[in-house]
Amino acid sequence: MRFLVGVTESGPAVHLVRDARAYNLSERFDGVGEDLAGLIGNPRLLQQIAGAVDLGPGVPVSHVTPSLPVRRPPSIICMGLNYIEHIKEGGYDIPDYPALFMRGPKSIMAAGAPMVLPRCSEKLDYEAELMVIIGQGGRHIAEEEALSHVFGYTVFNDGSIRDYQRKTHQWTPGKNFDDTGAIGPFVVTPDELPEGASGLSIESRVGSEILQRSNTANMIWPVARAIAIISEYTTLQPGDHIAMGTPPGVGHAKTPPRWLRSGETVEIEIEGIGICASPVVDEAEPVRSKSSVAANA
Amino acid sequence: MRFLVGVTESGPAVHLVRDARAYNLSERFDGVGEDLAGLIGNPRLLQQIAGAVDLGPGVPVSHVTPSLPVRRPPSIICMGLNYIEHIKEGGYDIPDYPALFMRGPKSIMAAGAPMVLPRCSEKLDYEAELMVIIGQGGRHIAEEEALSHVFGYTVFNDGSIRDYQRKTHQWTPGKNFDDTGAIGPFVVTPDELPEGASGLSIESRVGSEILQRSNTANMIWPVARAIAIISEYTTLQPGDHIAMGTPPGVGHAKTPPRWLRSGETVEIEIEGIGICASPVVDEAEPVRSKSSVAANA
Repeated sequence: MRFLVGVTESGPAVHLVRDARAYNLSERFDGVGEDLAGLIGNPRLLQQIAGAVDLGPGVPVSHVTPSLPVRRPPSIICMGLNYIEHIKEGGYDIPDYPALFMRGPKSIMAAGAPMVLPRCSEKLDYEAELMVIIGQGGRHIAEEEALSHVFGYTVFNDGSIRDYQRKTHQWTPGKNFDDTGAIGPFVVTPDELPEGASGLSIESRVGSEILQRSNTANMIWPVARAIAIISEYTTLQPGDHIAMGTPPGVGHAKTPPRWLRSGETVEIEIEGIGICASPVVDEAEPVRSKSSVAANA
Repeated sequence: MRFLVGVTESGPAVHLVRDARAYNLSERFDGVGEDLAGLIGNPRLLQQIAGAVDLGPGVPVSHVTPSLPVRRPPSIICMGLNYIEHIKEGGYDIPDYPALFMRGPKSIMAAGAPMVLPRCSEKLDYEAELMVIIGQGGRHIAEEEALSHVFGYTVFNDGSIRDYQRKTHQWTPGKNFDDTGAIGPFVVTPDELPEGASGLSIESRVGSEILQRSNTANMIWPVARAIAIISEYTTLQPGDHIAMGTPPGVGHAKTPPRWLRSGETVEIEIEGIGICASPVVDEAEPVRSKSSVAANA
């Protein structure tokens, strides 16, 4: 199955995509909310949807404005260096354990939403990545069972502010600027893809300018191995996201560096999953101490 | 005010602590839930509680089993190196920007709950830290206004698995083992402490063995500066936690190293806030691929 979470004239909903049409599941199935969280915990509901024949007329996929597939992932765990050639271009040694970091909830946004170039930097970079969404959680998940814990796969642009990423040895600030990491729009269940989503072409580009081009078969730690490694230290939860690292060709490693500029649209495409497009915009004028007095959601 | 979130015979509740007695606020005030989230977004409710005269008979503080002050902090952002002497003992250079990393929701637990020594390592270490809980969120918060964004201060033990922390340059795995980071039990509002919770003695110990002893005045980046630095890249949200780094004396820097052992209880104390005690236990036998099929909460 191929899901598209997003907003139409009927409001926010989860859609099933068949032949370029999007069918609203939230209106039709109890337990399907406004994002995938309700489906992730409910294999019976998934089966019911898979078997559904009459889903109504649907709308063209282009009528859906994407939202985040999971509005509040419990954790977003990212692998930093998972393609050998990308490790070399960054000047790092090839390690025997993945570099792992985390992104917070404010750093991500839906496909199609603006990717924000902050005022304090000119070094906004793209990173094409496969994103895993965990279905069944667990700890100490064996590699040979790990793929059964995957709910689905989507596309991720691990947008990075390179000078802040390297202010110290810890990458967190550069990986956590507001609205820099685009996720989606399509989430594809494992049965529709090769095992572990391996062997898929992965590409990033601006217009006709190809920036990265590789294949998910080139990952040092494939999806099953990543889940085993991560679940050695943490109990994965349903809805957790794991970003699988990026192939060579990132902007900071090009000569001269190729930073994203306001007005450009960067696209990440993974074969069989879809295209995640992000228009780059300048950060708005800051309001000092802009308040967020909303209750703790 | 001094808050204690935890469970009594009446169930889970937020308590106000006065003179070593805990008064159940959840029973008495609409809008106070089972953790501090409801209070954090509600300054009017806070004022109402501060002015309350009759809070009932209360119970001794020792009758309350602590829970996490905020059950699901949106983000837990940690400063790694914030006391000069601790930087030197770790072999790092003194930087001009803080090392920042994040902890996920499974890595934290309440004060008093077991601190788990995982089966894959013997290198469980303690780190005494001041923890800031954000009240009013915001982006680009100016240093001179930052302290008005603090809801309160609590105690944190940034428990670390040192060999996993240093498997690569990114510290995430070693900082994210399940049930290693204790928070609480008391959350103290800023009006009851020196400005920025500076000038408070901070200590970690096992029994009579003093492991760390310093003062929060020794931080390189004090609370207001930390909030300004972090909010340059991310919009802080109500309920976000910021851990302020640890002073010298951690176990891995001692000769010989001083790892925590099963059966010990490690205590972190900050003057004017309280003691966070964690009994160390061995990880239970793993159940391979232990499932967590709960709906995505």
